[in-house]
Amino acid sequence: MADLSRSVPFDRSQFEELMKKRFFFSPSFQIYGGISGLFDYGPPGSALQTNIVDLWRKHFIIEESMLEVDCSMLTPHDVLKTSGHVDKFCDWMCKDPSTGEIFRADHLVEEVLEARLKGDKEARAKETGATNVAVQEESEDKKKRKKKVKEIKVTRLDDETVREYEFILAQIDNYDGEQLSDIMKIHDIRNPANNGELESPRQFNLMFQTQIGPSGGLQGYLRPETAQGQFLNFNRLLEFNNGKVPFASAMIGKAFRNEISPRSGLLRVREFLMGEVEHFVDPQNKEHDRFDEVAHIPLRLLPKSVQAEGKSEVVEMTIGEAVKKGIVDNTTLGYFMARISLFLEKIGIDMSRLRFRQHMSNEMAHYACDCWDAEIQCSYGWIECVGCADRSAYDLTVHSKATKTPLVVQEALPEPIVLNEYVVEVNKKKFGPRFKRDAKVVEEEMLSWTQEVKEAKSAQLASQGKVTVVANGVEHQVDAELVTIEKQQRKEHTRTFTPNVIEPSFGLGRLLYCLMEHSFWARPEDTQRGVLSFPAVVAPIKALIVPLSRNAEFNPVVRKLSAKLRSLGVSNKVDDSNANIGRRYARNDELGTPFGLTVDFETLENGSITLRERDTTKQVRGTQEEIINALVALTEGKMLWNDAVEKFGEFNATQE
Amino acid sequence: MADLSRSVPFDRSQFEELMKKRFFFSPSFQIYGGISGLFDYGPPGSALQTNIVDLWRKHFIIEESMLEVDCSMLTPHDVLKTSGHVDKFCDWMCKDPSTGEIFRADHLVEEVLEARLKGDKEARAKETGATNVAVQEESEDKKKRKKKVKEIKVTRLDDETVREYEFILAQIDNYDGEQLSDIMKIHDIRNPANNGELESPRQFNLMFQTQIGPSGGLQGYLRPETAQGQFLNFNRLLEFNNGKVPFASAMIGKAFRNEISPRSGLLRVREFLMGEVEHFVDPQNKEHDRFDEVAHIPLRLLPKSVQAEGKSEVVEMTIGEAVKKGIVDNTTLGYFMARISLFLEKIGIDMSRLRFRQHMSNEMAHYACDCWDAEIQCSYGWIECVGCADRSAYDLTVHSKATKTPLVVQEALPEPIVLNEYVVEVNKKKFGPRFKRDAKVVEEEMLSWTQEVKEAKSAQLASQGKVTVVANGVEHQVDAELVTIEKQQRKEHTRTFTPNVIEPSFGLGRLLYCLMEHSFWARPEDTQRGVLSFPAVVAPIKALIVPLSRNAEFNPVVRKLSAKLRSLGVSNKVDDSNANIGRRYARNDELGTPFGLTVDFETLENGSITLRERDTTKQVRGTQEEIINALVALTEGKMLWNDAVEKFGEFNATQE
Repeated sequence: MADLSRSVPFDRSQFEELMKKRFFFSPSFQIYGGISGLFDYGPPGSALQTNIVDLWRKHFIIEESMLEVDCSMLTPHDVLKTSGHVDKFCDWMCKDPSTGEIFRADHLVEEVLEARLKGDKEARAKETGATNVAVQEESEDKKKRKKKVKEIKVTRLDDETVREYEFILAQIDNYDGEQLSDIMKIHDIRNPANNGELESPRQFNLMFQTQIGPSGGLQGYLRPETAQGQFLNFNRLLEFNNGKVPFASAMIGKAFRNEISPRSGLLRVREFLMGEVEHFVDPQNKEHDRFDEVAHIPLRLLPKSVQAEGKSEVVEMTIGEAVKKGIVDNTTLGYFMARISLFLEKIGIDMSRLRFRQHMSNEMAHYACDCWDAEIQCSYGWIECVGCADRSAYDLTVHSKATKTPLVVQEALPEPIVLNEYVVEVNKKKFGPRFKRDAKVVEEEMLSWTQEVKEAKSAQLASQGKVTVVANGVEHQVDAELVTIEKQQRKEHTRTFTPNVIEPSFGLGRLLYCLMEHSFWARPEDTQRGVLSFPAVVAPIKALIVPLSRNAEFNPVVRKLSAKLRSLGVSNKVDDSNANIGRRYARNDELGTPFGLTVDFETLENGSITLRERDTTKQVRGTQEEIINALVALTEGKMLWNDAVEKFGEFNATQE
Repeated sequence: MADLSRSVPFDRSQFEELMKKRFFFSPSFQIYGGISGLFDYGPPGSALQTNIVDLWRKHFIIEESMLEVDCSMLTPHDVLKTSGHVDKFCDWMCKDPSTGEIFRADHLVEEVLEARLKGDKEARAKETGATNVAVQEESEDKKKRKKKVKEIKVTRLDDETVREYEFILAQIDNYDGEQLSDIMKIHDIRNPANNGELESPRQFNLMFQTQIGPSGGLQGYLRPETAQGQFLNFNRLLEFNNGKVPFASAMIGKAFRNEISPRSGLLRVREFLMGEVEHFVDPQNKEHDRFDEVAHIPLRLLPKSVQAEGKSEVVEMTIGEAVKKGIVDNTTLGYFMARISLFLEKIGIDMSRLRFRQHMSNEMAHYACDCWDAEIQCSYGWIECVGCADRSAYDLTVHSKATKTPLVVQEALPEPIVLNEYVVEVNKKKFGPRFKRDAKVVEEEMLSWTQEVKEAKSAQLASQGKVTVVANGVEHQVDAELVTIEKQQRKEHTRTFTPNVIEPSFGLGRLLYCLMEHSFWARPEDTQRGVLSFPAVVAPIKALIVPLSRNAEFNPVVRKLSAKLRSLGVSNKVDDSNANIGRRYARNDELGTPFGLTVDFETLENGSITLRERDTTKQVRGTQEEIINALVALTEGKMLWNDAVEKFGEFNATQE
């Protein structure tokens, strides 16, 4: 990372100006007025994304031999009904029937109550005659939001109301629609713009709906996550892995979320790129066999125990220690947390602005039983960028039940297990004719009894010569000559279990945004121009080639150099515009290009060229071959810039 | 390419069996019954796709410094209304009102008439007493289709009807809904299953619809192509390229098509990966400055002139010759056709089964003015895999008009052009007070007059002292003291034009499928097992590492070898199952793994290992370092297998 201590303070509007000017990203369909929550990446944003994805694939999929899949985005209703998304992937919204305006209910309650508390504070201040009110600092995020409440009324509230508002705000994320509706009624929350009454909150499902095929009969959705496709292919993946767990599948792809009113730029969008790993593991053995490789890695943790005390200080310790102390549940979860941290460091995230926050029990997604989020601090606050959840056996179990397809692992036991169990056996010959069309359900009912019930029924059979069976709500009596319920010994040679799933889930667009913020700074001597200090490995373009002037003599050298670098895997760009060299370099600092090569008249004479580094602006000079070799080593992370300066010596020449 | 002359004949069911068994792909949501037209790629299919995409990015985007973008899939109605897709991206369907069954109209007409012709042939054969009827061979595709017409009625038709049916079938792709409706009425085409009457064909738009946001007011679609996002960003892209054309943008991403009843496996799907290039070029100069690099490349062409004669023989010539003869319109189109051909060769397409077919005028998409398709022959027939269309200025023009946003290039002229033109100038001071709220529209109307009108109006002003202006349907009289209309001389220093677009558009999923078919063969000595002879550059995994046995002594060597190869960019897989070596290699032949490394007891003694090549099954042996170096060179295409055999000598050992 560049030493950013020299930088002027971060200014989001300056940063956004650069993003727009250099086309890192911009709102989609802008000439049609744009659609909130949809963005396009331009050439540098797109190249940055490609490089992050490429590194993600190497760091996770290739390094760990994960099974990559690419599944459909269009997903039929039944799949997402089973997974719980049709019922639970929702926000609550309420409508002003007079204007048609729609509010996200929790956001509205939050804003109105915060405004009232602010008004109360001002009223109290006036009473006491204080002039300098210690109004709580608003986060950058809140400052930028388009406020629904335009005006703060200075109204004194009684102390109990203040306490009640504060209580509601503290757990605003945990209310369901009915509770939000009650709060809105009790506290008379209306449309702030016109004081109009609002309809009761109703659930709004965040999935985009569509119809598959022409008949309109097949309801579908755009997937809200890439995970489901992986679960549905579990049997094929298990077979591909020769029937053994643990193994991981992975997918990189787009997912969708129909936000009610998206804000926060690239951080809350309706269409986003994810990288998701589903690591399938034996629930009785969640040890990871490569954990020792990462045990020494320090992480900044914010466990739920700390949050429960209302604190937010991070605890720094190695992941080995965290697992040993039981703060992190198992070595598989721990392994992935450490690997996530290494990945984020590699792409250039500022590690002092990274923390792993454990979910509180009431904020977990419907499928998760434990979850640690990698949160990254940016100008919008702490942002969840990677979730690392233990989804237990939830998904495989529900899909298996809904489709009557076993989604299990069968493991040969080293020693067969001897079981003494009650077994129900019917006398087929007599049973069928006696119960006719009820025969099947009566038999199934008996077979489905637990061991406890079978034991009791066995006793009933012995004592009364018959047994009572309630099937489909109808009571039947089954005589002893039709059925036996007896203890039998049998050997089990395999163990059958539903694996648990540990899921590291990356919001790659959010990562990309945080990385761009963390990489942005401005030199004190040129505050109007930004610099993006991306590590070479993810930088959109690795090298800029600048001929000193537009003299045609330079063309063959420049063209050859560019082709040579390309063939060595160093992406590069030629800037032969007639701007002066300093300006051309400044332009590329804004694109985050780490290295620059200058071709000048001396190059034509003796073949030497100059290499410039972006963050220090220092230069070195050597023969083309030497400089090319150094450049390849530098972009592959096999050489540090300081080594290059030591090797070639610093070169000072003003060439403008 | 492997020499497939030894292969047994291609058998699609055997091929599909392998695809399924090794999880190259399978129907999505299969445990829920599957959805036609949606497929998931498993690990080898997914890796193959990644490698093809990677090579595409290098071959096109990086090599040509194209501007890659990543735009939204969700697209608002207005954009696709303007582009023509809302009105024209349709098929015709008709419904059986009694059963609800839906047919694609053209397919139904085709099938019913073909069945009647077949019945007629049999009837005629019976009349003449012929026993061996020369019934026309059906293509593989037709044989596999689920037939709507289950039974062929042996009915003699009169000669004129036969001719009429044949005429209809010959141009079945060119009928619109009304024509199809007429044909169905005249020839009494009904639901073949129940002879039920069908509703008239109606248009079915092939885009998936959805609502963006919660209010239901914003109609959106999933994009049918990736091109539109690139056009809408034209101004930003042009600015990124310093205002100059030609330049190309490119995008790799999914697009969608709600097929009425998809068939033909991976070739006709509802969700597919595309790679699209939009090359923006001056309409007055469609020369490509790198054309000379490709002019010598031979292509197999099927121009429209040949097709118009009812023939399908390809003409083989270099692209340089084709452009010179005017068969291919310009060097830019020609350049891309040659580059497409080189790309297809690189990934392993059989070049003898590739042709470039020019579109007939009546089959072109609504936006295109010339189009050459790269068609690849597979068991389904000749398949359009890459379209190379000249979209002229269509898209930029319509979007510019709809949004009132100029989407043009401004080019400095070497010499300014002197123009003598009539210019309308109003006297602002008097004009406003005189016309009040009409002032703006009256002025705009006058400014919008053509030169011809201005000349006439100038004359009117001179002769009558006033001029008539009709604005918004109201007639106004403008006095001479309020306006002048006079000829003025001015110099124009820039030329403004809307660029044309040459678009190479790749169906990457179709390419992937054709490649898998072309790579598939079976050894005569082991016909039950297939081999997939992918070139190393796209092969899902480059090397298999097999320890001779499960002896624990092999583990450290195997692990080190695997990590070493990974660090050198050679993806690999270890197979330490207890199957014998021959079987393990056969398994990997099915995955298309080009190389195998055997670790045996001699490796433990002296460090030597064996390298096996998939297509020849020949082996060589050397030190680990030698073999690793050779392997890297082989996978990067810097060494041929024959050279390796020459260098190390063939190694013969049965190790099982």
